[in-house]
Amino acid sequence: MKNKSEILIKFGDRVREIRTQKGLSQEQLASLADVHRTYIGMIERAEKNITLININKIASALGVDLKELL
Amino acid sequence: MKNKSEILIKFGDRVREIRTQKGLSQEQLASLADVHRTYIGMIERAEKNITLININKIASALGVDLKELL
Repeated sequence: MKNKSEILIKFGDRVREIRTQKGLSQEQLASLADVHRTYIGMIERAEKNITLININKIASALGVDLKELL
Repeated sequence: MKNKSEILIKFGDRVREIRTQKGLSQEQLASLADVHRTYIGMIERAEKNITLININKIASALGVDLKELL
């Protein structure tokens, strides 16, 4: 995606914010969420249009409600 | 997807609830959200793992905040 979507940027920033608050590396979060180890970086850089199932996995891994990520 | 994900079922039910509250047909909502006319039906039946960009489109078309759909 050349033009990054505002909503993906907002989401990625929020994931990074909560992840760092929890003291997790991208790799640790990927492992907890059962996604590929490079995936969290792509999401935080708004390079991927994430699906609802993966939003849910990441919220669970971060221990937050889905709504807190949006 | 054979086994429908709980989160997709919840999301689809919520979309249907708000859509019918607003008196919109699936086709009308699809047109407002700029998605294919069969797409809303698939989402409401939890047959598709929707992306964040499309969640955002549907929320805008329904005139609700993203968080209200989740």
